[in-house]
Parts: sequence; C-alpha cells; structure tokens
Amino acid sequence: MANAKKVEQITGMDTDFAQWFTDVVTRAELIGYSGVKGFFIMRPYGYAIWENIQGELDRRFKELGHENVSMPLLIPESLLQKEKDHVAGFAPECAWVTFGGAEELEERLCIRPTSETLFCDHWAQTVRSWRDLPKLYNQWCSVLRWEKTTRPFLRHREFLWQEGHTLHATAEEAIAETETMLNVYAETYENLLAMPTLKGAKTDKEKFAGAEVTYTVECMMHDGKALQSCTSHYFGDGFTKAFDITFTDKNNQLVNPFQTSWGFSTRSIGGIIMTHGDDNGLVLPPRVAPTQVVIIPVAAHKPGVLDKANELWERLKKAGLRVKVDDSDNSPGWKFAEHEMRGVPLRVEIGPKDIEAGKCVAVRRVDGEKIEIALDELEARVPAILDDIHALMFAKAKLNLDTNTRSAVTLGDAKAIIAEHGGFIKTAWCGDEACELAMKEQVGVSSRCIPFEQEHIADTCPVCGKPAHKTVVWGVAY
Amino acid sequence: MANAKKVEQITGMDTDFAQWFTDVVTRAELIGYSGVKGFFIMRPYGYAIWENIQGELDRRFKELGHENVSMPLLIPESLLQKEKDHVAGFAPECAWVTFGGAEELEERLCIRPTSETLFCDHWAQTVRSWRDLPKLYNQWCSVLRWEKTTRPFLRHREFLWQEGHTLHATAEEAIAETETMLNVYAETYENLLAMPTLKGAKTDKEKFAGAEVTYTVECMMHDGKALQSCTSHYFGDGFTKAFDITFTDKNNQLVNPFQTSWGFSTRSIGGIIMTHGDDNGLVLPPRVAPTQVVIIPVAAHKPGVLDKANELWERLKKAGLRVKVDDSDNSPGWKFAEHEMRGVPLRVEIGPKDIEAGKCVAVRRVDGEKIEIALDELEARVPAILDDIHALMFAKAKLNLDTNTRSAVTLGDAKAIIAEHGGFIKTAWCGDEACELAMKEQVGVSSRCIPFEQEHIADTCPVCGKPAHKTVVWGVAY
Repeated sequence: MANAKKVEQITGMDTDFAQWFTDVVTRAELIGYSGVKGFFIMRPYGYAIWENIQGELDRRFKELGHENVSMPLLIPESLLQKEKDHVAGFAPECAWVTFGGAEELEERLCIRPTSETLFCDHWAQTVRSWRDLPKLYNQWCSVLRWEKTTRPFLRHREFLWQEGHTLHATAEEAIAETETMLNVYAETYENLLAMPTLKGAKTDKEKFAGAEVTYTVECMMHDGKALQSCTSHYFGDGFTKAFDITFTDKNNQLVNPFQTSWGFSTRSIGGIIMTHGDDNGLVLPPRVAPTQVVIIPVAAHKPGVLDKANELWERLKKAGLRVKVDDSDNSPGWKFAEHEMRGVPLRVEIGPKDIEAGKCVAVRRVDGEKIEIALDELEARVPAILDDIHALMFAKAKLNLDTNTRSAVTLGDAKAIIAEHGGFIKTAWCGDEACELAMKEQVGVSSRCIPFEQEHIADTCPVCGKPAHKTVVWGVAY
Repeated sequence: MANAKKVEQITGMDTDFAQWFTDVVTRAELIGYSGVKGFFIMRPYGYAIWENIQGELDRRFKELGHENVSMPLLIPESLLQKEKDHVAGFAPECAWVTFGGAEELEERLCIRPTSETLFCDHWAQTVRSWRDLPKLYNQWCSVLRWEKTTRPFLRHREFLWQEGHTLHATAEEAIAETETMLNVYAETYENLLAMPTLKGAKTDKEKFAGAEVTYTVECMMHDGKALQSCTSHYFGDGFTKAFDITFTDKNNQLVNPFQTSWGFSTRSIGGIIMTHGDDNGLVLPPRVAPTQVVIIPVAAHKPGVLDKANELWERLKKAGLRVKVDDSDNSPGWKFAEHEMRGVPLRVEIGPKDIEAGKCVAVRRVDGEKIEIALDELEARVPAILDDIHALMFAKAKLNLDTNTRSAVTLGDAKAIIAEHGGFIKTAWCGDEACELAMKEQVGVSSRCIPFEQEHIADTCPVCGKPAHKTVVWGVAY
C-alpha cells in the first residue's frame, strides 16, 4: 500500500525523475515561483526544514568557537577584482547594481556571489597581532549567481546558505580547519539528513575560484546522479597577500595569515528530496522534518476520539517532538495520502477501537510498516521509532550508493558501466586535466572527487595509460 | 567610580553625543565600516545582540502562529509599480540591478526596500478560499534604502530586520493583528531591552507608503530625542485590490482579503546604546547582552584563583547564563574598564581573600553597586541580580521619558519648552497637515504619534486655534 501510487498529481519517479522532482517541491508547498527566473520563494514548509538544519549547524559551529557576523550585500567592482582567479571565476555570473535611487553610481556594485573579498577587506583593517587570531567567522545570508539554467533547490540565482570564513596564524591550522568543517558537514548529512557521503578533494579543474584546495561532500541521488552537497576551501595566503592582511607574529615578524571558507546551502534540501523521496512524494528525515508525527483521528465524530487525539498531541509535544493533529474535515484516506506526500515520518492513527484497546497504530512513512503502540508507552516508543526510521533511511541510501559505485580499469569498462548503470565509477588517474576532459567527452562524467579514502584500482590512467597515483570518483552531476 | 570617565577613547556624552555614539559602536566592536557608504559590518559582539533579540522575537511570533518564509531579494520594476502610493514612497530610494553577468536586463530589478509587493504577488497565486486564511508570514532578511545620510544602526542603506506580512478574511481581524504585533514589539522593548515605550498611531503625513494606518513604538533617547523604534501597518484591501488577490468566502462570494505588515530592525540596537549608555561606554540590558557576567580573577597568579574562576564560570554556565572568564594577561584595572566599556551587566571579582572568605564581589554595570555574594549562593543570587539590573535600567529610562515629556497649550509654550529642555511635548491638534508642518517650521519638531492613551491638553489647536480632538506627541527624531 505505502508504495502504491496514491497521489495522482505526482509524476512517477521512473517515468520522469525531473518532473517528479518539480511535482514534489510544488505539491508539498516547499517552493513557490516568483516573477524573476531563478528566484524562488521558500514557503513555510520548505523554510521550516531549512530552519531545522540551520539550528543544528549553527550549534555545531558555535561549539567549535565560531562567531556569527553580517557582512554587506554589495561588493564594489574594484574589491572583487583584487584576487585575480576569484574575479575570473565569479564576475561572469554577478548581478550588478548601477543606480542608487535616481543617481547612476560612480562604481558599479555586485550583489555578493560569495563574500571572501568582504571578509578580507574587513580583516585588513582589524587584524594586527597574533593575539587577534584565529578569526572564526560565519554568516547566514543569501548569495546571487546569475545562472543560465535554474531549478528549485538545485540551482537558484539566489540561494540561502551559510558561509564560514576563517583566518589563522599558520597554514597547518587553516588546513585543519578546512578538514574539520568538511567533517562537520559530512556528520550533519549523515546524522541529521540520513544521507551517506563521499568525502574528498576536488581536482584543480573543479576547485573554487581562488582556492588552493577544495574539499567536497558528494552524495548520490536516487537516480544515481551526484549532488555536490557542500564544500570547504583552503586558500593558503593568496587572498591575504592580495588584500595586504598582515599580523605581527610571536617572533615580532610581520607576516600574512592563512585563510579558509566553507559553505552549506539550501541545495541540501534538494538532496533530501532526491535521496529519500518515492512515488508517493517526499520522505523527510525525522531529525529535520517540520512535522515529525501527524496524529489522525479515525471516526473523529465519535465521542472521545478528538479529545484523545489532542491528548496524545499534548503528550508528544511535551516530550519535545514536532507533532500535529489533522482534525480537518477531510477523510482519513485523503489525510493519509496528503501527509505521506508531505513526507511526515510517522503517522499515528487513533479511533474508538484503539482507545478501547488502550493502543494506537503508528505507520512509518519510509516503508509503510505498521506498529502497535500501547498508549501509556507513547512517549517512550515514538522517539525510538523515529531513530529507527532515520537508520532505515540511511541504510537504504547507503545501499544505493554502494550498489551504484563501480570500479573501472579501462575506458571501455567506464563507458559500459555508465551506459548500463549510471551511478559513480572509480578509476585510477594520472593527474592530467586533459584526461579529466577526455572522461567528460568520451564517458560523459565529471570528476566528483579524489576520495580521502584512497584504494588501488589500477596502475595506469584509463585514458592515457601513463602511471596513475590517485583514485578518482566520477559521475554525472546535478 | 562607575561614573568617572575611565575610558579615554570615548568622547563624553555631554561634550558631543553624536561623537560619543560613534566612539561607542566602534570601540565596543559592534560595527565595522565597509567600502560602500551606509553598508555596515555587524561584528560578532554587535551581531550577538541581534541574535538574542531575534531568538526572543521569533519565539513570540511562532507562539502566535506565524510561519517563517524567504522571499526573493529582487523586485521587478513593474511589480513595485502596482500599488501607486507604495511605489511613490519607495522608488526614489531603491538600488537598481541592471546587469546579470554581461547581459543588460530587459527590465530592471530593485533590491527589496520592503517586501509587500512580493508577498502580494505570491498570495495572488496561492490564496483561493477562506480555508487558506489567515496567512501569518514573517521573514528575517536585509533590505536596502538608498539614504543620503547614514549612521551606524540608526540609518543604514542596508539593514537587518524582520518583516511580518499577514492576510486576513476580515478588516477587523487584520486591524487586531496590527495592534497585537505592535504590542508584542512594545512588550519586547520593555521586557527584553529595558526601554519604556510610547505607543500610538502615526499621522497621515508620517505613515508608511500605501498603509491606511501605521502604528508606532517611539522611544526617548538619553539626549531627549525620539527614536521611531518599530512600526506595524494596516493596509485595508488597497494592495489586495491592486494585486487582484481574491478568495471565496464562507458565503461563496469572491472578495478581497485584508493585509498587514510589521517590522523590527537592528535600529533597536542603536536605541539600546542611546537609552542606556554612559560616559564609560555601553550599558547592555542583561536579557540581550552577549556576555551577561564577566568573571575577573584578581591576583590570578596565586594558587587556586584561576581554578576557582573557572569553577564559577562552569556553575553559572550550567545555570543557563552567558558568562565569560577574562584570564588574559591584562591588569584587573584594564579589564574592569574594558568590560564596562563593552557594557557587560555584571562583573564578578574573585581573588585569594574572597576564596578564603567563601565569597565573591559582584559589581553592577548600571550603577557601580558592589554586592557580596556567598559562593554557595552564586546560582541563586546572580539571576536575581540580573533581574534587578533590568528593573533599574528600565526605571532610569522611564524617569528620563517621564521627566522630559511636557504638555504645551500654546505655540509659545511649545517653543519655549523645546528651546529650554528638548524632549517630547504633548499638544492638542486639529488634525490638519498644515498645522503639523507649522510645528516643524516654527518649533522644530515632528509628530511622533497620536498616543493610544489620549489625554486632554487643550480644546484648541496651538497653531490654528480651531477645535482639536486629538492629542499628539511631538519631538526631534533620529
């Protein structure tokens, strides 16, 4: 039953995955379209997921000593141009402000596509001594990138994110920060969003404009494609030299500090949808679901049913859960389908016979499993069931990732695997960008990352046959 | 001692209040200047105050059933123009985006100065039936207004705020929402920021562009000037008609709903500074202070002192307080002055003799009062002392407001009072805009509000001598 296609408005996943995705984000009221292409409205149900993610990430950041700040929205063109690689990467997709009121501006201002230049400009004015370091800053904001193709959650022209920016006395400390924050992200994906991760470094071709190293978390979606899910960058002292940021170190020498940045965006919600969703709609991980439990009174007109439903609601709310009663005048069947479509992790049904028997029936969204719960055990059982649901969702997604990650020794293998199965392939790689480009042209995949966990696939590069010292994971990316 | 001018870098309040204000926001590291006029950096200490305000307001909004959303940053010019009064009010101070990447846009886009038009556009697409109402939405974001004169916190070109936007089936319900939210704001000012409030309606001249009614919270600063501290607007069905938002009511009639909006911004932090600050710098209300208690070890090199300081820190942290130990190698005297300048509500000093006597000394920032606390009563006493501090700060500010609010029957009275004392004056008013303008020209004051609590000052307008039915409060505004 749970896997039957109940909600007619949603296209089947296997029929058209892209249309299924659009149907889900629209029908579940996560997203609204505005009058400007690529600028989406985060509706209450979608934004509440983001708030839950925000709360958890923000707590983790602060526990590690980070402080929140707010930098300006606008960057003068001259400031953006200070670091040459950075401006080359971002200027083509900047939105430009040219008028303030009726007056044409002397210098045009871009809406931040990212804020490295603003943080560096501020640090150049405020950092003087080793006592001022490290600076561990973060901001929650939106950024703009004027993309040609846009899709809800996956590619907005404006998207919400956090951007961490840190400054350190030594390269070692900055590299450690870059790694720590990538691990915080991966842990959040796994423990909060029930999404298994592949962690690694980007190739030079794929790294962030201006970075020395970019680390990435890559996730596999239900259709076998990759979602670059967040990144963490080590900048060395490239920006700090360009912006003339110096400090007096403990040996009384004037030196440049080292820098990182790292970002996590609402794209993660696209990842949740495409990792866990099914033909009935959304399947939300319990730890970020705006409603974790929906209580549905059955035969609600019978005496005592609605009161009992409200009593259960009260008790679960007190236990710290996000819970709702659906006491609307729709039929139970309609409610079941509606809350399934909206991905509520657990449905609790309560009717006259249940009350008589001192129990209720709970139904897990992830697999339709029905569980009888004695009413006096409600607060004890429900949190444990939600944890089970999280574990089940993670295991399901992990199986998809593991099953659809395959090794290829030759170019022929790689082509055959991608043509037949899609998913990720692991190959050896010589390190040449030419071979990376050849993989794109001939196999249709881009490098996702050089995984932290390296394994031996082959001695030679599948493209050029030269000696290979690295293993790369490739895939088709969103 | 507490009122002696210890921190040399800060200009005296009586010497130059404006310069004092700038010194405080800079020296206390609340604000940084960016390369673009009117775009300020909220540094960690300033932003942390905002986060504490945000948390409290957000909780109040949600308890009243409001949901958070995120609307786009950019508004097409044609959308802004749909409501005629609104565009007339805001277009002159919009920042305009004219290029996306290298391409000139067909229609220019303004960076939101406020988001009524975006919410209305969304509702026109999504509201159909009385079942869809009310819509109780809020968003936390920044907005842009291209002001000529700018000052930290008080007048930014970009400022952080929340904007609530709601839609209702009836005018009564919308008016009640407008009032409720103004009361939530006033309660927050009083109970969180220790700032007494004057609540009332704006005159037609001063109301928000497009609103039928604007309610306001006005606060008096230390120098007797007024700060318009937040506003709440009732729009009637003006926008909903202009945007063609309709719904089918319970009688199956297609009608226009009624609308409100309300906003609270980082300007409130400017209000905190100018209400409570003194010649030694900031004085922060305990309920929003990033650090509520600073523990300063005295003779920290003596055995056991630092351990004891850390133990007290641990205990107060567990009690839910925001507390820090200053174990830097600066002298106690320097630390006292520094944390006073930063406005930390309570300083706890602990040295060898205190430890021996089983006590510590707590010093209140607001008045320098010293309080001995038995160490085993620490968790019980400190929260109560912080509540006392809040009450003291409120009382001090209330005295300033009451003392400097005076009644004037004639224009001569009004001129004399303002010339001699400044502050607020209350007069009768006939309701004519001409007389309002005359008050500005001849007395130098603008109307702050028509207070909810009306009292009888005179039978006739002090300007024209015609019968007056309203009492207005006037002042010089920031």
